[in-house]
Amino acid sequence: MTPRRTGRRPGNPDTRQAILAAARTTFAERGFDAASIRVIAAAAGVDPALVHHYFGSKEELFRATVEIPLDPAALLPVVLAGGADGVGERLVRTFLGVWDSPAGKAAMALLRSAVNNDWTARLLREFLVTQVLRRVLDHLDVPPAELPLRGSLVATQMIGLAMMRYVIRLEPVASAAPETLVAAIGPTVQRYLTGDLPAGRGRDV
Amino acid sequence: MTPRRTGRRPGNPDTRQAILAAARTTFAERGFDAASIRVIAAAAGVDPALVHHYFGSKEELFRATVEIPLDPAALLPVVLAGGADGVGERLVRTFLGVWDSPAGKAAMALLRSAVNNDWTARLLREFLVTQVLRRVLDHLDVPPAELPLRGSLVATQMIGLAMMRYVIRLEPVASAAPETLVAAIGPTVQRYLTGDLPAGRGRDV
Repeated sequence: MTPRRTGRRPGNPDTRQAILAAARTTFAERGFDAASIRVIAAAAGVDPALVHHYFGSKEELFRATVEIPLDPAALLPVVLAGGADGVGERLVRTFLGVWDSPAGKAAMALLRSAVNNDWTARLLREFLVTQVLRRVLDHLDVPPAELPLRGSLVATQMIGLAMMRYVIRLEPVASAAPETLVAAIGPTVQRYLTGDLPAGRGRDV
Repeated sequence: MTPRRTGRRPGNPDTRQAILAAARTTFAERGFDAASIRVIAAAAGVDPALVHHYFGSKEELFRATVEIPLDPAALLPVVLAGGADGVGERLVRTFLGVWDSPAGKAAMALLRSAVNNDWTARLLREFLVTQVLRRVLDHLDVPPAELPLRGSLVATQMIGLAMMRYVIRLEPVASAAPETLVAAIGPTVQRYLTGDLPAGRGRDV
């Protein structure tokens, strides 16, 4: 699981930084869906073509703002291979693979920052929802009305796993072989994604 | 769920602070079990009787170092009432009750600090293991060898719940009624505590 590099030139550092700063503000304030390259370019005082030139797509720009050198979409085929059966275990396995790769350092920095900074927390929320959870759930046969609750339940388990294994370092989770955690936690994620959630029937949110 | 206050006098602020500083260092370095009032008193340059006078028991001193104004032991009867059946749901319900009480602010501060400070992370680990998880698991009919893995799995789900609901504030988990989360997450915690964990059989940690 190697972090993907776009190979784009860094370009003028000042322009690049201005675009990144405008993108962070815009994504945090409006959310990923409502933010547009055009609005971000205007906030940075540059032409939209320059944003595309430096960062490519809106997805790539977003990943640059959260400094995650990895495209979650590239991992989706692995997670979704085989359909709904075992998707929980594959999601946990892939997640651990990312955290154990060089991209894990960026993920840790994002998580640490989000805990102490509301603005980064918003970016992390947008990242989880638009780049990871929605993409996985879109491929599963789940009623659309249940997607937000299911997605956020998955997030509680995955972020908690990252916290305990990589940040708080509670044993034996901190040193367990990935497959131990896949076997133990995969069924939880599977149930949140596709299982019969009591909350899915009479929920009040 | 009101935070318990000990009613002890604050005493000389300098002495109190010296004892607290020594306790934080000692608990973080040696862990809760190996730390003793005697060692902490020596590190603070005071008589052990003074530590007892200001803080009471080692448990109370430890809670003061992590600034949690609440004795987890006081909540145990509620969590354990009814035995193993439903203990997962009761643990989630009690946990949410604490976070939604005035003690939640202290818990949030501890969590935030632990994310960015290895030393506080060690204290949080000790708190989770010795003050919460071990106490719950000691009352359930679980093979002792499985306790550490079960306890740390519970911690991944509970800390992730706190992270997503109170810190990152991902919807709908952030605004869901407590009972929605109890129904959705309780069975996960139940399985980690008493269920047939695949990892419990052939684990390599």
